[in-house]
Amino acid sequence: MHRRTLYSLSSTVSLLRRNIRVNQRLVVVSTASYSTKTVAFTADTYSHKVQRDPKFKKLDDADIEFFKGVLTDKGLITDADDLLFYNEDWMRKYRGQSQLVLKPKTTEQVSQILKYCNEQKLAVVPQGGNTGLVGGSNPIFDEIIISLSSMNKIRSFDSVSGILKLDAGVILETADQYLAEQGYIFPLDLGAKGSCHVGGNVACNAGGLRLLRYGSLHGSVLGLEAVLPDGSIYDSMHSLRKDNTGYDLKQLFIGSEGTLGIITGISILCPSRPQTQNVAFLAVSSYEAVQKVFVEARKELSEILSAFEFMDGTSLYLTGKHLKLDNPIESGEYPFYILIETSGSNKEHDDEKLENFLAGAMEAELVDDGIIAQDESQIQSLWSWRESIPEGVTATGGVYKYDVSIPLPELYSLVEACNERLQEAGIVSLEDESKPVVAAVGYGHIGDGNLHLNVSVRKYSSEVESLLEPFVYEWIQSRKGSISAEHGLGFQKKNYIGYSKSPVEINMIKEIKNHYDPNGIMNPYKYV
Amino acid sequence: MHRRTLYSLSSTVSLLRRNIRVNQRLVVVSTASYSTKTVAFTADTYSHKVQRDPKFKKLDDADIEFFKGVLTDKGLITDADDLLFYNEDWMRKYRGQSQLVLKPKTTEQVSQILKYCNEQKLAVVPQGGNTGLVGGSNPIFDEIIISLSSMNKIRSFDSVSGILKLDAGVILETADQYLAEQGYIFPLDLGAKGSCHVGGNVACNAGGLRLLRYGSLHGSVLGLEAVLPDGSIYDSMHSLRKDNTGYDLKQLFIGSEGTLGIITGISILCPSRPQTQNVAFLAVSSYEAVQKVFVEARKELSEILSAFEFMDGTSLYLTGKHLKLDNPIESGEYPFYILIETSGSNKEHDDEKLENFLAGAMEAELVDDGIIAQDESQIQSLWSWRESIPEGVTATGGVYKYDVSIPLPELYSLVEACNERLQEAGIVSLEDESKPVVAAVGYGHIGDGNLHLNVSVRKYSSEVESLLEPFVYEWIQSRKGSISAEHGLGFQKKNYIGYSKSPVEINMIKEIKNHYDPNGIMNPYKYV
Repeated sequence: MHRRTLYSLSSTVSLLRRNIRVNQRLVVVSTASYSTKTVAFTADTYSHKVQRDPKFKKLDDADIEFFKGVLTDKGLITDADDLLFYNEDWMRKYRGQSQLVLKPKTTEQVSQILKYCNEQKLAVVPQGGNTGLVGGSNPIFDEIIISLSSMNKIRSFDSVSGILKLDAGVILETADQYLAEQGYIFPLDLGAKGSCHVGGNVACNAGGLRLLRYGSLHGSVLGLEAVLPDGSIYDSMHSLRKDNTGYDLKQLFIGSEGTLGIITGISILCPSRPQTQNVAFLAVSSYEAVQKVFVEARKELSEILSAFEFMDGTSLYLTGKHLKLDNPIESGEYPFYILIETSGSNKEHDDEKLENFLAGAMEAELVDDGIIAQDESQIQSLWSWRESIPEGVTATGGVYKYDVSIPLPELYSLVEACNERLQEAGIVSLEDESKPVVAAVGYGHIGDGNLHLNVSVRKYSSEVESLLEPFVYEWIQSRKGSISAEHGLGFQKKNYIGYSKSPVEINMIKEIKNHYDPNGIMNPYKYV
Repeated sequence: MHRRTLYSLSSTVSLLRRNIRVNQRLVVVSTASYSTKTVAFTADTYSHKVQRDPKFKKLDDADIEFFKGVLTDKGLITDADDLLFYNEDWMRKYRGQSQLVLKPKTTEQVSQILKYCNEQKLAVVPQGGNTGLVGGSNPIFDEIIISLSSMNKIRSFDSVSGILKLDAGVILETADQYLAEQGYIFPLDLGAKGSCHVGGNVACNAGGLRLLRYGSLHGSVLGLEAVLPDGSIYDSMHSLRKDNTGYDLKQLFIGSEGTLGIITGISILCPSRPQTQNVAFLAVSSYEAVQKVFVEARKELSEILSAFEFMDGTSLYLTGKHLKLDNPIESGEYPFYILIETSGSNKEHDDEKLENFLAGAMEAELVDDGIIAQDESQIQSLWSWRESIPEGVTATGGVYKYDVSIPLPELYSLVEACNERLQEAGIVSLEDESKPVVAAVGYGHIGDGNLHLNVSVRKYSSEVESLLEPFVYEWIQSRKGSISAEHGLGFQKKNYIGYSKSPVEINMIKEIKNHYDPNGIMNPYKYV
């Protein structure tokens, strides 16, 4: 790596400009496509896998009257057009047939609603910002959708302890902006932050971009308010970092995906907002080197390391091709790229640490080339390369997506194993348009052991699918990985839990589910 | 604060020397007293509160034979003298009457033992290092003690991810020393580290000195292996930071105090070991100032802040008097003292941050005086002031100890409220030896909202006790605090859970307990 490359300002700036333009175009395309396509009912697409459970009552006029009594007319959505947004997921893969959305404004209203539904055996689906990736927040049949979007108040913030209490329906970005004004930061960040709800984040145990630095929600969530299926309100909305009086019950709700109750309030510990950030984008020759750079970064950047993302050469190539952008590393193409972010309180110190670290990594010949962003807009630009990959690898026609955790040493081997398997079948080529598969690529939050395996295809086919599944799941199982690192199971992976959990664990999960929701009204047909 | 005081090397060094001498003396006294005093049976002391449950079988020869078959003779302790260590807690407050200690070496043996005990309705007490503060790891009657001390192997360490897997019976300090050799640190530290087991730490959700920096065990523990009462083995010993496939069941065991099953293995995420540390000891004029210094420290020291401890003037006065040491702050006595520790990767950077922070705090007149340790031994010396307080406030005769969480703004008001109450009753004086109470003092992990309220007394009396209880618990309850921040409930606080948990929560806890341990054999007579 040369100084010139390390500080190649001009190329980064031009990259930024083009990137913004491209991103705008992508948004337009996405909006346009939304109005034209009709999504098939999940119940039809998956009729071989799921049937409506006749134990659930069908909604009738008396039910509607009851809900109007609780919420007034304004809290109900029954118009078919208006219902569409809630019935469909944002990827437009799943579509339910709910006839009713309820929008409670208070925990007490949620309690009255659930108590009634439980007594009447009306199935429900809790819904936050509807940004999930596994169809977990949409109905499959006629389940009533309970949207938390009208419960969107910040309840309190203690600027001494950094503890924020808020309604479940507050949008993540709104919460973070509120905190920014106070000098604090929400300990979670993800692409959907402009739409997703903090309640949905907690219900799905969202991971995202800040986990490496601030840890998981199991550590940062201090208290919850949740309504159980029988209408009772579980309230642990404490302002306490420590409380060792009994089992930590709130943990059960974190990651329960709406199957145990409805989270209505959250108490969360927020760190001080970093005052300075750096981003470096590095090229390396092997996955071995990626790991070594990670170990060194953890050691040398230590307390200021806030993200360590990686992407393979093919995913960057496809992204550059699709976005019509030149590789941010000018000296050529490399097998692997790394994005390192630091966040700290002193710009000078952080610059020095990062430069020392990179000088050491170059000297040890771990890093072949690299670039450091020089200002906030360049930081955004380098991040957008990482964040554009999901679009870039889909642009060829389609993509099979897997979000997995694998112990680090073997993490990338899954991508290699997939490519080998596809090559053996003679159906993969980066350039040959006659082959159905473009490539299996890998990228993700390597700092968290979280790989996004994406199989980029020119068209979907059962041949490709049968080559990938259950192969991918079995491969992960044999390495004691997780088939869902951060997306959850929802409807999509409901049948695959056995690849990551033992019969003892599955049995324990089912027992807890049956105990708290004996009528099974909470988010049925999903993973438990 | 003057530069001279900030760097008063000589006084700190002399303080250190004396301190080490005093600490050695204290250890001798403590050892001497151990051999002379006989502790009354818990069953006698608390006969009005607890009776042996006749549903539990009494141990017979056939049981002993069975256990010998599983463990061989070596795995059983039946000698009365040898049993004493396991029957008593280390504070020598509680004493059980167990006739049998079992020391399994494998998870499979634990499984066979529990399955048998469950079938035979033999009550058991899991025991780690026996360092608990609430009598949770000792039998009350004749429960069989299952000691994890023979399960003490490090299973594996991945130096790329920092994930350590180990047996539950590994001593905390052993684990930390092992990690130190690899450049990593155990994310938990506490005074009992030389004796306590990591399994006990997890079972009790220990907090300790590194929580401010590395968060709670709910965030850092990645997986557990535990044996349920029916002998089934729950195994989630993953090497994964992220796994969103089903409820996070391991969380139930973290803080369950041996009432749900026996933790046999732990997978935990360990951070890189900091390469440099600083400690500053500051004097401030008010609790208001303590809070303001904390807010500024979080902001300015941000990523390098690793401890923020406080102690009031009286606790420091009593400690100095007892240890025959001069106050580390030479310029006089102050109402409050703060210990700040930083941990980072660059000595120069950290020094600069700390100096800038202290200069700012002095300029804002938040800090009245202070001292910064100049080397490792001075760091230990300043820490020992903080760590000697429990001994210092007990030296007058005795102490009523409360370990509580209270939202920060009101945290110290509890100490003031206690002193007012004791003064109104005319029974408190720092110097007048005729009064039963010396003072109510406060210190603790203020960065975590965790106060140790200690009421230092010249003698125990029912008058003092009835003034303090339930007053203290009611006061905490009205501020939505926790009556046990980090010590747990155990036997000592078994009847007080209602002050920190709602009937809904207590009911949920009991339901989970009854579900997993329907015969109630796991650590009975304790909090659930």
